[in-house]
Amino acid sequence: MNLLHEDIGYFDLTTIGLGIGACAGKMVFSAKSKIVVSGIDEVVKILKECDLKYTLFKQDGDDVTQNEIILECEGFASSLHKAWKISQNLLEYMSGIATYTHLLVTLAKDINPHIVISTTRKNFPSAKELMLKAVMAGGGVPHRLGTYDSILVFKQHLIFLGDKAKIQERFAVLKHKFLEKKITVEVDNFEDAYYFASIGADMLQCEKMDIKTLSSCVALKKEFPNLLISSTGGVNESNIQNFVKIGVDFIVTSAPYHAKPVDIRVDMSVIE
Amino acid sequence: MNLLHEDIGYFDLTTIGLGIGACAGKMVFSAKSKIVVSGIDEVVKILKECDLKYTLFKQDGDDVTQNEIILECEGFASSLHKAWKISQNLLEYMSGIATYTHLLVTLAKDINPHIVISTTRKNFPSAKELMLKAVMAGGGVPHRLGTYDSILVFKQHLIFLGDKAKIQERFAVLKHKFLEKKITVEVDNFEDAYYFASIGADMLQCEKMDIKTLSSCVALKKEFPNLLISSTGGVNESNIQNFVKIGVDFIVTSAPYHAKPVDIRVDMSVIE
Amino acid sequence: MNLLHEDIGYFDLTTIGLGIGACAGKMVFSAKSKIVVSGIDEVVKILKECDLKYTLFKQDGDDVTQNEIILECEGFASSLHKAWKISQNLLEYMSGIATYTHLLVTLAKDINPHIVISTTRKNFPSAKELMLKAVMAGGGVPHRLGTYDSILVFKQHLIFLGDKAKIQERFAVLKHKFLEKKITVEVDNFEDAYYFASIGADMLQCEKMDIKTLSSCVALKKEFPNLLISSTGGVNESNIQNFVKIGVDFIVTSAPYHAKPVDIRVDMSVIE
Amino acid sequence: MNLLHEDIGYFDLTTIGLGIGACAGKMVFSAKSKIVVSGIDEVVKILKECDLKYTLFKQDGDDVTQNEIILECEGFASSLHKAWKISQNLLEYMSGIATYTHLLVTLAKDINPHIVISTTRKNFPSAKELMLKAVMAGGGVPHRLGTYDSILVFKQHLIFLGDKAKIQERFAVLKHKFLEKKITVEVDNFEDAYYFASIGADMLQCEKMDIKTLSSCVALKKEFPNLLISSTGGVNESNIQNFVKIGVDFIVTSAPYHAKPVDIRVDMSVIE
Amino acid sequence: MNLLHEDIGYFDLTTIGLGIGACAGKMVFSAKSKIVVSGIDEVVKILKECDLKYTLFKQDGDDVTQNEIILECEGFASSLHKAWKISQNLLEYMSGIATYTHLLVTLAKDINPHIVISTTRKNFPSAKELMLKAVMAGGGVPHRLGTYDSILVFKQHLIFLGDKAKIQERFAVLKHKFLEKKITVEVDNFEDAYYFASIGADMLQCEKMDIKTLSSCVALKKEFPNLLISSTGGVNESNIQNFVKIGVDFIVTSAPYHAKPVDIRVDMSVIE
Amino acid sequence: MNLLHEDIGYFDLTTIGLGIGACAGKMVFSAKSKIVVSGIDEVVKILKECDLKYTLFKQDGDDVTQNEIILECEGFASSLHKAWKISQNLLEYMSGIATYTHLLVTLAKDINPHIVISTTRKNFPSAKELMLKAVMAGGGVPHRLGTYDSILVFKQHLIFLGDKAKIQERFAVLKHKFLEKKITVEVDNFEDAYYFASIGADMLQCEKMDIKTLSSCVALKKEFPNLLISSTGGVNESNIQNFVKIGVDFIVTSAPYHAKPVDIRVDMSVIE
Repeated sequence: MNLLHEDIGYFDLTTIGLGIGACAGKMVFSAKSKIVVSGIDEVVKILKECDLKYTLFKQDGDDVTQNEIILECEGFASSLHKAWKISQNLLEYMSGIATYTHLLVTLAKDINPHIVISTTRKNFPSAKELMLKAVMAGGGVPHRLGTYDSILVFKQHLIFLGDKAKIQERFAVLKHKFLEKKITVEVDNFEDAYYFASIGADMLQCEKMDIKTLSSCVALKKEFPNLLISSTGGVNESNIQNFVKIGVDFIVTSAPYHAKPVDIRVDMSVIE
Repeated sequence: MNLLHEDIGYFDLTTIGLGIGACAGKMVFSAKSKIVVSGIDEVVKILKECDLKYTLFKQDGDDVTQNEIILECEGFASSLHKAWKISQNLLEYMSGIATYTHLLVTLAKDINPHIVISTTRKNFPSAKELMLKAVMAGGGVPHRLGTYDSILVFKQHLIFLGDKAKIQERFAVLKHKFLEKKITVEVDNFEDAYYFASIGADMLQCEKMDIKTLSSCVALKKEFPNLLISSTGGVNESNIQNFVKIGVDFIVTSAPYHAKPVDIRVDMSVIE
Repeated sequence: MNLLHEDIGYFDLTTIGLGIGACAGKMVFSAKSKIVVSGIDEVVKILKECDLKYTLFKQDGDDVTQNEIILECEGFASSLHKAWKISQNLLEYMSGIATYTHLLVTLAKDINPHIVISTTRKNFPSAKELMLKAVMAGGGVPHRLGTYDSILVFKQHLIFLGDKAKIQERFAVLKHKFLEKKITVEVDNFEDAYYFASIGADMLQCEKMDIKTLSSCVALKKEFPNLLISSTGGVNESNIQNFVKIGVDFIVTSAPYHAKPVDIRVDMSVIE
Repeated sequence: MNLLHEDIGYFDLTTIGLGIGACAGKMVFSAKSKIVVSGIDEVVKILKECDLKYTLFKQDGDDVTQNEIILECEGFASSLHKAWKISQNLLEYMSGIATYTHLLVTLAKDINPHIVISTTRKNFPSAKELMLKAVMAGGGVPHRLGTYDSILVFKQHLIFLGDKAKIQERFAVLKHKFLEKKITVEVDNFEDAYYFASIGADMLQCEKMDIKTLSSCVALKKEFPNLLISSTGGVNESNIQNFVKIGVDFIVTSAPYHAKPVDIRVDMSVIE
Repeated sequence: MNLLHEDIGYFDLTTIGLGIGACAGKMVFSAKSKIVVSGIDEVVKILKECDLKYTLFKQDGDDVTQNEIILECEGFASSLHKAWKISQNLLEYMSGIATYTHLLVTLAKDINPHIVISTTRKNFPSAKELMLKAVMAGGGVPHRLGTYDSILVFKQHLIFLGDKAKIQERFAVLKHKFLEKKITVEVDNFEDAYYFASIGADMLQCEKMDIKTLSSCVALKKEFPNLLISSTGGVNESNIQNFVKIGVDFIVTSAPYHAKPVDIRVDMSVIE
Repeated sequence: MNLLHEDIGYFDLTTIGLGIGACAGKMVFSAKSKIVVSGIDEVVKILKECDLKYTLFKQDGDDVTQNEIILECEGFASSLHKAWKISQNLLEYMSGIATYTHLLVTLAKDINPHIVISTTRKNFPSAKELMLKAVMAGGGVPHRLGTYDSILVFKQHLIFLGDKAKIQERFAVLKHKFLEKKITVEVDNFEDAYYFASIGADMLQCEKMDIKTLSSCVALKKEFPNLLISSTGGVNESNIQNFVKIGVDFIVTSAPYHAKPVDIRVDMSVIE
């Protein structure tokens, strides 16, 4: 997907029709509110593609205060108008994700400075790369990119195995075959959590558990000292501290993907 | 962008490691709440790509009640696990957009049954096609796809033209050259609105105007009977009726793009 | 489609076999006859891809007199031979389209300086972007890019609607739903023309009408002052003035797409 | 390049707006005049992509008489309208090339039944595959696809070699290195023709020679019995027989690429 | 990369020139020697693309004895000749990798049935997916797909950190940030091995160590019971058992990527 | 296929996790043994894509002695770590092919300085371009790229023609239709060789013949002075001289494609 082409297509009718393409101008991107910025690398690619000269004042992950300039560029009006909206969109959406991720990270670290905020593979289809880069700019990490980089056992896998004997046998094979990976199992009750901890799961992904059940799962870490516990499902800025307080090792969430875009101001001016 | 590849990559390690790929199974997608569904066509492509047999119970734009089945499919467990999450993501995100668009449309039509809800080109980069299809499933229409299909004059164009004489001359050229298009101008005050209506703008896009100014702009329709007025900026479900009441012809909004995904239940079962 | 790869593939056997790749040379493109040039931007991309230094003497849309230089470039013989034919092809085909479009525009404007020459979506498959850029260089505009950017009702749509009552109802819905677009209907007789003008068509595309019928359609503009009339089908340099004289607002044609390529001279020389 | 996407993009606004997509219909393609048809395989791909059932009455290269049916298809009106214009375009442009190639072949074979009509690499950029398939449907062959499949020495190569001694030495290397290829040299005078025949060229491409010079080149075949002679430059239906009469082995031409598209009738009807 | 296009391009000149395309035929793929087969899924895609009917007798990872049939297909001679060589290539190269991987696995498991054979990211550029699928068919697993799915610390990282204090601090951050991943360090001496084991490495990748040093590293597993030890560099079928005997947990190797292709017989016959 | 993306994907977790990306460094590629280098152009593309400054000491096809530097580059550690492995892979695999091709060429030319080493279309699927460039760097040439650039008649074609009369007729058509190509036939016995030489084959590809049969085929060159003879099947460095001694014109082989990669040392250092 060429992002510039998605927005501009074959031509910019308005700029052509007004006959202003050959004028020289400047375009300045700044933040309308305090944000954690993301999307800089992608915008730089757009600016290069449009033959615009640019100056960066910020890098991905930087704090930007209200009205602070993020980057500026110069060139033909035809180039500025090509680059404008897709660059603004990249910064608004990606900074929105970065800023919200950073909010979750900050809230969570107030309770436990070692907590990790990890985002799921439930990104908007086609937008995985952009969304994950924004998450990392905000201080989060990818939980798993997809089925190719990690092992995560769901109930939807187990139904094809049948009884516990079969599960245990196949789980052992899985764990052994992919010994370079940590093995995660999604569980939604204590019994399953205990079972998978006991047969060697490295990590339990506790799905939409109530506080009490989740606490019991966290307590398993005493019996299984290498076990890591995460909480997933329904986490957001208003409840994240509750989960962290229980003592989970990390939080798995899709919430940053739906964060509201931030507002980026774009000022254009003529260069005489 | 191949959406299946984005999620699955080279292989599904968990399914391979558990050795369940050759089992036969069934997968059913249903709505956890009342929604307007979207994403069916895209899911069908995924199911075909995974060699799954499927039955559709709904089409894009259909209402789905809580727990109602949207579609179901059958085939190898390896195929079901490949198709699962990306299909669920497509339905959740796209139905989220469709459902929210439909909410805006319903609220607006309660006031004015002829109102049109139109969405901007400020989609998530790389997701324009999916987002616009979802908007249309919800009863909205695309405002403009990009710079190639429509004329929209911004202040950022006008600064390159200078004085009013020059603007008027070039505006006439633009309007004439692209006589098959309606010419829109974005304005944020009454003076500009009047000016562009008087030199022949077909549509005014009233950007973040207060109610009083917007009302004055709508009143221009008396003097300029073919003029269409839209309101844009900051529209959402809590304020849309206020804008409609003023008498605008259509609403331009990006809000549906950030709608929260709906919850889609996925039930998998073994076929013996 | 990478245009350079289409022509060069993996390598240039002749240049390799003769062992001349490392020599330095210069390549000059000039016009063998008076033309309106197009393809400059595409050639520049090729030259950059081949690491050639270049100087442009013309821009898309410029007049070039016989023997006048359009652009020149320097670099390794291997690069010159890579860039040569595809660059020549781009200039010859695109300037052919631009020059012919310009001829039509000139002929038409001799009769009516406000006439617009608009080209159809019947371009050579895969060549839409290049063909439309050439049309614009010659002073034409795109009639419609495809089905996604404009509304054009054909008989082939109407047959699925049945009687006039149904047509009228659905036409109203169409017009209202896409209120940001002008609605065009293709008609081939006066009765249909009158009918669609009366139910609100913004533009009539008069398909292969005789002069008398077309004149009657143009006369509808008195009754429907906002109505725009175009003529389409069989327009070329020998008959275009006849259509313009009748008073149509614009001409819709595919003729420029089949224009004969112009001849571009390519002189190569050694840099000692 | 996805040809369907080039024409349809994200959606077909007219069909959606009129609400006719779910109707069933039939579409029939027939020839408005006698043609040699081409583009069938490409149209079949489009029809499949649109989920249309089809019947073929002709294959690429077949003669089609006036009003004869080429193919027909059935399905949803939404699918018919998606497939319509791009299919028509493919058939019109490709059959135009095939028909014109066939005319050249027929004219030439009237004089010499062994003559070969070969088309250059000067196709419209991005359309090489479609244009060459059409040429082959009309009885022609590709002269060379590009620089990767054949050896063709131009003056623009020789200038980098300098004197005759150097040319002779490098020509021998070239011929030896690529011994699996026939070596062609483009010449525009008899002296060069004789020279390259004498140092072992397999084929001479005689560029825009007058009849007398070309005859002298053909006469070289007596002294060099394996030598093949072609004529190139400015060949068309009105002069091709003159070149063939001289006794060349084959004709190299770009003329079919600019052939006028043929007219294909498309009839659509409702299936009740 | 479309594999069929890479081999066939625009057309198959020989089949066209001989005029045999419309004949019906059958093509049978069998093994010339005992192999572990791979490439079946890729061949099936080719056969479908060529509209050939096929029957599979084997799946990826199956043993095939000498002369045993792997798959057969039927259709037009033009389709058989299109599909032939690329299908044969896929089976020969991928089965070559699978068979060699299987040899390594068998040799290693003779010594330690729990050993894992893992292949590096040093595949032939552009062939990662095909090579890794073949490795898995032979019983191996991917060590890491690239930099995006796993953590592997090289000396080339550490030089940018400076002294041990800095390394220890940053290593802790790395380990914590990516707590869902096992952290591997490549070491080539015991001192480094001990150091990284002591600061929490999950796995040590022992690069080209002599037997004695490698044994000392394996002995670290007593002090660090969760530590996994792998051997990498220069492993092949003649020495793999030596490494396994020392007690490493897994072997990391690129050797299967350069395995000689196996011979696949292709028999074609006419269907009358 | 973007080669950098294949190796790096969305990000380099290790470099990010260690926080070293912004350090400045230098990376030097040198040969661990005497090689013929290939892959330089592809590595240059990678280095540019990673914004690294580079200096080249060698070009494709150059000899590199042990420890000699091939190229070096400087930039951010994040860029060096992105470019590292894929660049090393390109140089190792492509130089492996070039070095082995060069060995075959050298051995063969010791016997006959005019011999040509030509490589088949049986490359690793998806790697044709890289493999062929490496072959050419080593002094070989491509035998045929695929079915689109050359004529090669196999038994698998002939079975569809039937008796000799039919073969002879169609062979004549083939030869005539593609008169710009040399026509090759693969044969595995003298009788067929004689037959095809007598009906006008330009080249015979002698498949896995014993020395005596091959010698008889070479002897055909006396009767058919333009006939070229190649040997194919099972050629490698230990037997190539035997084939050359017989007097074949060229050797057709796939052996270089499976050549073992050479070892390239990569030294990274900090720039203070």
